[in-house]
Amino acid sequence: MLPYQIIEKKSTGLELTPGEIAFFVNGYTKNDIPDYQMSALLMAIFIKGMTNEEMLALTKVMLESGDRLDFSKTDGFVADKHSTGGVGDKVSLILAPVLAALDIKIPMISGRGLGHTGGTLDKLESIPGFNVNLSVNEFQQMVLSNGVSLIGQTRNICPADKKLYALRDVTATVRSIPLISASIMSKKIAEGIQGLVLDVKTGSGAFMQTYDDSKALAESLVAIGNLYGIQTSALITDMNQPLGRKIGNWLEVEESLACLGGEGPADLMDVTLVLGNEILRMADPGLSSEAAQQKQQAVIDSGVALEKFITTARLHGGDTRVLEKPESHSRATHVVDFPASRSGVLQAVDTMQLGFLGIELDAGRRKTTDVIDPDTGFMIHKRLGDPVQTGEPLLTIHANKKPALDSVLSQMEQVFEIGDEPVDAPKLIYEKIG
Amino acid sequence: MLPYQIIEKKSTGLELTPGEIAFFVNGYTKNDIPDYQMSALLMAIFIKGMTNEEMLALTKVMLESGDRLDFSKTDGFVADKHSTGGVGDKVSLILAPVLAALDIKIPMISGRGLGHTGGTLDKLESIPGFNVNLSVNEFQQMVLSNGVSLIGQTRNICPADKKLYALRDVTATVRSIPLISASIMSKKIAEGIQGLVLDVKTGSGAFMQTYDDSKALAESLVAIGNLYGIQTSALITDMNQPLGRKIGNWLEVEESLACLGGEGPADLMDVTLVLGNEILRMADPGLSSEAAQQKQQAVIDSGVALEKFITTARLHGGDTRVLEKPESHSRATHVVDFPASRSGVLQAVDTMQLGFLGIELDAGRRKTTDVIDPDTGFMIHKRLGDPVQTGEPLLTIHANKKPALDSVLSQMEQVFEIGDEPVDAPKLIYEKIG
Repeated sequence: MLPYQIIEKKSTGLELTPGEIAFFVNGYTKNDIPDYQMSALLMAIFIKGMTNEEMLALTKVMLESGDRLDFSKTDGFVADKHSTGGVGDKVSLILAPVLAALDIKIPMISGRGLGHTGGTLDKLESIPGFNVNLSVNEFQQMVLSNGVSLIGQTRNICPADKKLYALRDVTATVRSIPLISASIMSKKIAEGIQGLVLDVKTGSGAFMQTYDDSKALAESLVAIGNLYGIQTSALITDMNQPLGRKIGNWLEVEESLACLGGEGPADLMDVTLVLGNEILRMADPGLSSEAAQQKQQAVIDSGVALEKFITTARLHGGDTRVLEKPESHSRATHVVDFPASRSGVLQAVDTMQLGFLGIELDAGRRKTTDVIDPDTGFMIHKRLGDPVQTGEPLLTIHANKKPALDSVLSQMEQVFEIGDEPVDAPKLIYEKIG
Repeated sequence: MLPYQIIEKKSTGLELTPGEIAFFVNGYTKNDIPDYQMSALLMAIFIKGMTNEEMLALTKVMLESGDRLDFSKTDGFVADKHSTGGVGDKVSLILAPVLAALDIKIPMISGRGLGHTGGTLDKLESIPGFNVNLSVNEFQQMVLSNGVSLIGQTRNICPADKKLYALRDVTATVRSIPLISASIMSKKIAEGIQGLVLDVKTGSGAFMQTYDDSKALAESLVAIGNLYGIQTSALITDMNQPLGRKIGNWLEVEESLACLGGEGPADLMDVTLVLGNEILRMADPGLSSEAAQQKQQAVIDSGVALEKFITTARLHGGDTRVLEKPESHSRATHVVDFPASRSGVLQAVDTMQLGFLGIELDAGRRKTTDVIDPDTGFMIHKRLGDPVQTGEPLLTIHANKKPALDSVLSQMEQVFEIGDEPVDAPKLIYEKIG
């Protein structure tokens, strides 16, 4: 078998065999096949696509390239939630402690900010001392004892995916449904979970550009999960505007604390609880949606979920004083409103562009070696369909560097579209797959 | 300008600007852009194609990456012939001295065997001592004084093409009409020629898989040549069977000597002389095809063309005793006939496969570091449409290694298709473009 022939086969649109995919990906992981051959194959896959069989073979070889967690001897239901990425999407920070408070085991392997989107790990690290780099063994122990732990992808979990992902990120081959599906699902399967709910974003702040693509991605993720014996469902949810009000690492932790304290904005709470219902009803098929939602609301109202979040942060080495007194956390030096330039109705938010402006404030990274500023970001004041008066603040910018603030201010006009037509607020949840 | 964005643009099928192409190719040549990003772009180009404007921009940046020969102060017509590659295609060895004997200046930058095809440089090096690695200055001087010189691509001529070509060869992105066109034409334009005839092969031994692709390649080559002020035409010629009777490096030199001695096989001589007519009539538009052909025949009959070949070899450091007495050259140890397994009519020859079997005999290379055996190859006895009797030799194998001989013998049955239907010999020359 020659790498050349496999690249050629895919480039002409033919289907690769599982053996060819395993040969190529394993050869690449072991450095037998160079980057330039893998990037040629990735581009051929990006353009020509993959059949379901090819995508499953790719998932399998990435999964089997590393370790898998084993919770088979554990009492209780082991599950996870995964989002395809958005702006202001802090659902994991809220849902993980809520579910752990309800005796679901949550071994959550999360990511960092990618492109214009934020990442759970970066948000957690805005809590001073929070360590997301646990060993697989420490992680597994904490899930068993505490009910939840949140870490980054280690060297031992899906190393083939880790290496491939880095190459895709520099060769413009990220936005491919089979490649995204295999990458997400190999890591989720490695978690050893029984249930998985996927939050597939659609709209101006999502990676997938059309509703059809979001739906195709959801279907492909669910198909892989089910094939591996994981109860899997996906909700297609709106990302035509940020989720919740706050964007930026510490700002999002702060909003999550408000949610866990029963003070969260409605859109964010709705999405969180509906995703939680999915997991709770996988664990207990007799449970109604209403009952599942009441259970979640109860651990929020009682303070148990917030306590679980604080305990989890402490177990990860985090300084929990800022969680108990959020106002004691450091703040950005410049906190500046951006006013509406005309009156009317908010028609559209270029959510991806808003995410990229966050990167200018160091709330995200241009390249992997950049250091995040935990305090910067945005606070949104207006939602799609809201009436707006000239001069009213549309959002507040939190910045530490004056030149970045000025640059963001000068570009912010393009983010918001204000018009005269009335606009209905978009649906929050479009469809359930699986 | 970011390499990432240029890759992404091409991968979605959008047209790149000349500035983007220059930025990417120059960045790659200077090692600012890594192999893995270039191979992703090459695969996107391979699948999505290029517009004429993109192809011209690529040709220009490759041409301008290195030196160009200057024959503008030279008396006489400066021209070249280039073939897209075939099996048994030794036309350059015959035509270059014929045209030089007729006062055409031929600065021929040739290639090595590629894939299943032979290469002029490898054939010339079967003449002991023949040095194809002259400096640009030595090359230019020999063209001026001797009328012809044949060298390989130097470091200084189209270095961007040289680096790109090596990458295409290992990433399965060779067979792309715009990439082939830009690669061939940037080198031909760098030769400083006034006239160019292209021999575009079609059939079972050609790189292009269909007649339409061969024609599209011919049209694209001619368009680029004309745009650079070079009189350019292309002939689409048959490669459904080897050209001439002998395949292999020294065997082909031997057959070329026979051609220059007036003893060449009809198909090979016909293609050679018709290509030569093109050049002679570019140099002298008043010349008829008949008169051009008679001029070529005259320098063959008089021995002047053969003498020019021998002199050229001597000027390149070659030992000309083997050219004066071909029987004194070394021979392969095993010279074995391959007999027909049935009687009938020769229907088809898998010419590409025959070329690959030549590589097993070391007449070509698996990888660039392989050493060629000059003595091995094949002598064909039957042409398409010929009647064949059981046991009659279809070809003779020249081999130095017994295991390779046995392997080739065991696979040779698949090369020849013998049937009962009468078959017309294919046309030699299908069409002229330009």
